[in-house]
Amino acid sequence: MNSAVPKPLADLIEAFGQLPGVGPRTAERYAYYLLKSDSAKSSILSEAATRLHSAIAVCPKTFALIEADQQFSPLYTDPKRSKKTVAVVAEPFDIVALEKTASFHGTYHVLGGLLSPIDGIGPDQLKIAQLVNRIDEDEVEELILATNASVEGESTALLITQQIGDRPVKITRLARGLPVGVDLEYADQITLTRALEGRQTLL
Amino acid sequence: MNSAVPKPLADLIEAFGQLPGVGPRTAERYAYYLLKSDSAKSSILSEAATRLHSAIAVCPKTFALIEADQQFSPLYTDPKRSKKTVAVVAEPFDIVALEKTASFHGTYHVLGGLLSPIDGIGPDQLKIAQLVNRIDEDEVEELILATNASVEGESTALLITQQIGDRPVKITRLARGLPVGVDLEYADQITLTRALEGRQTLL
Repeated sequence: MNSAVPKPLADLIEAFGQLPGVGPRTAERYAYYLLKSDSAKSSILSEAATRLHSAIAVCPKTFALIEADQQFSPLYTDPKRSKKTVAVVAEPFDIVALEKTASFHGTYHVLGGLLSPIDGIGPDQLKIAQLVNRIDEDEVEELILATNASVEGESTALLITQQIGDRPVKITRLARGLPVGVDLEYADQITLTRALEGRQTLL
Repeated sequence: MNSAVPKPLADLIEAFGQLPGVGPRTAERYAYYLLKSDSAKSSILSEAATRLHSAIAVCPKTFALIEADQQFSPLYTDPKRSKKTVAVVAEPFDIVALEKTASFHGTYHVLGGLLSPIDGIGPDQLKIAQLVNRIDEDEVEELILATNASVEGESTALLITQQIGDRPVKITRLARGLPVGVDLEYADQITLTRALEGRQTLL
């Protein structure tokens, strides 16, 4: 233990150092910033961190994050949203990204990850059985597989398609192609191949 | 408020967003990481942040950070350290950097900043009068001005030199020159000028 850093400060530096991508220097900077700031700032952080696990729950239908006193996610109960169109995403924060587009008016289903044998995530760790139930219960008409354009995302999408079997539901996935604003010459080969395959008729 | 992010989580994201250099995406990543981790992790962070201000005090001699139940910094009271050599630094974490060298065996004086009229830091905001007192009380023989090699660092060093007046104390400052491992061709002009001025005799 370095005597230049008193233990209470070293404890906070260590706690910050647990966060993803935070090295010792960054953790020091965060802790020292809080120490120099009004104590209200660290109280707010402390209280938010304390309440986190007790105040957040998971919607039993969509598996989106909800407040502990809510029964279902407002994204599921909102009457302006169609229960018959379901976007299937890997993680809760993928919902935030899709909601920011303001162009989706269905509801969601959070898988809780993507197939990844290396990380020990197999079919049983994902909420696929619950998704199949929802298709039957809510008479889902379209399932948008909004998983990442990665190997894990693709194999998870394939698995879901298999599990759904011959249920009368339309299965779509997000278009692959050139990101808006990116020059063709900088696009990678696979993206460009997907963009060619998915070419759209203009006239 | 985005209904995709429940309030308790949004609160924590906002609290993380107050930290220096943390944007909305990073704050989201930190908060979501804590949510996915065992609740022990957020408890540890929460407790460390709560105790921070009450458990940390400032040494009345060196103005280094100490634990609230310590009277003086161990860097001051340690009998193996000479009170007659004082390194003057801007901020408490500068002590950590100097201690890591393991080649300084005197004690420290933290100014609490550097002269910076733009940020409203004038001579009265710095612990210079206290430093002058220490020179008299502890019969300090050498003062190492270990301030940054910046305009603020240089002007603060100059101010301290003036305030000390004709007291019989040797005043030194950290050498300016080429950082170890840096090629001469990549060194900036001012650093190279200082390295020339401070050239050392080999034989």
